[in-house]
Amino acid sequence: MRQGESMTILMDAEALNAFLEHEFPQVAGSYRVIHADAAVLTARLAVDVAHLRPGGTVSGPSMFALADLAIYCAILSRLGPVALAVTTNASIDFMRKPAADRALRAECRLLKLGRQLAVAEALIFSEGLDEPVARCSMTYAIPPERR
Amino acid sequence: MRQGESMTILMDAEALNAFLEHEFPQVAGSYRVIHADAAVLTARLAVDVAHLRPGGTVSGPSMFALADLAIYCAILSRLGPVALAVTTNASIDFMRKPAADRALRAECRLLKLGRQLAVAEALIFSEGLDEPVARCSMTYAIPPERR
Amino acid sequence: MRQGESMTILMDAEALNAFLEHEFPQVAGSYRVIHADAAVLTARLAVDVAHLRPGGTVSGPSMFALADLAIYCAILSRLGPVALAVTTNASIDFMRKPAADRALRAECRLLKLGRQLAVAEALIFSEGLDEPVARCSMTYAIPPERR
Amino acid sequence: MRQGESMTILMDAEALNAFLEHEFPQVAGSYRVIHADAAVLTARLAVDVAHLRPGGTVSGPSMFALADLAIYCAILSRLGPVALAVTTNASIDFMRKPAADRALRAECRLLKLGRQLAVAEALIFSEGLDEPVARCSMTYAIPPERR
Repeated sequence: MRQGESMTILMDAEALNAFLEHEFPQVAGSYRVIHADAAVLTARLAVDVAHLRPGGTVSGPSMFALADLAIYCAILSRLGPVALAVTTNASIDFMRKPAADRALRAECRLLKLGRQLAVAEALIFSEGLDEPVARCSMTYAIPPERR
Repeated sequence: MRQGESMTILMDAEALNAFLEHEFPQVAGSYRVIHADAAVLTARLAVDVAHLRPGGTVSGPSMFALADLAIYCAILSRLGPVALAVTTNASIDFMRKPAADRALRAECRLLKLGRQLAVAEALIFSEGLDEPVARCSMTYAIPPERR
Repeated sequence: MRQGESMTILMDAEALNAFLEHEFPQVAGSYRVIHADAAVLTARLAVDVAHLRPGGTVSGPSMFALADLAIYCAILSRLGPVALAVTTNASIDFMRKPAADRALRAECRLLKLGRQLAVAEALIFSEGLDEPVARCSMTYAIPPERR
Repeated sequence: MRQGESMTILMDAEALNAFLEHEFPQVAGSYRVIHADAAVLTARLAVDVAHLRPGGTVSGPSMFALADLAIYCAILSRLGPVALAVTTNASIDFMRKPAADRALRAECRLLKLGRQLAVAEALIFSEGLDEPVARCSMTYAIPPERR
């Protein structure tokens, strides 16, 4: 977000990871929030064999899941622990082949945090490569009880 | 595809499932091709606890993975077993909440099968609901050795 | 829309065109609704030199505008003359080159008409070609006063 | 683009505007490249009554056209005057309402410039507002004669 909107966060990386472990125990082992402030949230996927595809690369759904988690956590960092925010739209470009033996890192920025809809974008990097391997934007619907 | 393009397929549902079991053993247990002809391909995800999210629904990445598999198989059904076709872009709208205890079904139609790019769309249904729970379109890059 | 949702429309092609002429006089000369029922809406762009691009083809923004108009009218056909429904997201695939001297036709289907969001898809055809030249999906936000 | 790829451009803002005036005379009057370097390209739409919509805002297709032009020019700035690069996919989020009486500005960054496909993103600003009014990503196919 930019000037004119709230620059404070309600949940930091530690609080977000605790929330993930409680609410999403099936993914919390692989996906972690590394850093969260008012400008950017960084999350990480520890790639293992379950995420790989033939040709020695990480599967598209694993990258989608990382972007989804990073954007969800970026919204939670602003709104607090609202488990029911839901993705309504996602667009993703797969641009380069991630390394099979390196973690993935998503850098997420909120572009809009409205009463009903939030929009964010994420770049995904394969650790050790300078260029992003994927780009993703998503819209989330904010549940009315939190507006 | 519509009239004017090839109306024959090179791989049917049985051949596609055998290919998935050999190349993608980690997903072949949950995802299956149900039907494939020149007009439509139907695939199915047997939803289990690994695909669920809080609130009793199926995760977005699981729906994305089903659409990705259905579209990949629709391309293979026309081109033969080309393991290296890769997704370059995906757009997905999540429209309704799938039931947690029902399988998901994707209905996929190829819209373009060019020399370099293929475009397809898929509607995803939660078994027992008439309305689609999600809509997805994807672009795949076709490897040059198969053109 | 499918069974289980309202199968009636509040505005037909004639009513939609009268609305466009009144509210959007700058586009109503080129873009027309041809047909509207509960299942599908068809709209047409009479391509002229303003819509062309080098190489003898129709510009991407002209195709985007046709899809946007068709989807907007499909929503109005169900809700009545709500001028303030707004596009929040669009995804478009340009698949084939339209002929420069033929009209374009959009076929639009509503996939969801919720209280806050509507989702629809459109295929765009260049008259005389069987294959679609573009595919588009859009999300509209429905103004609260009409819910 | 980031380190590791070419950091030089073949066409600057002046050369791009001359190209637009020659190849796209119907749009060159409203759309201009303001700045182009290896990191970012900025383009501007001088909004006039033809771009407006009811409610005092700029039409979606006008914003789409600005993003398309900015991304096209960013690719040309690297490749030289290749008139035949074509958009294959676009995803756009309309996030805020632009002012009717202010110009729009697009800031575009190339994320990938491959042999066959280029991917770029653009943020669109309404002059005088700090927050972006729209976000867009597009894929272009690069004609083989230029690879």
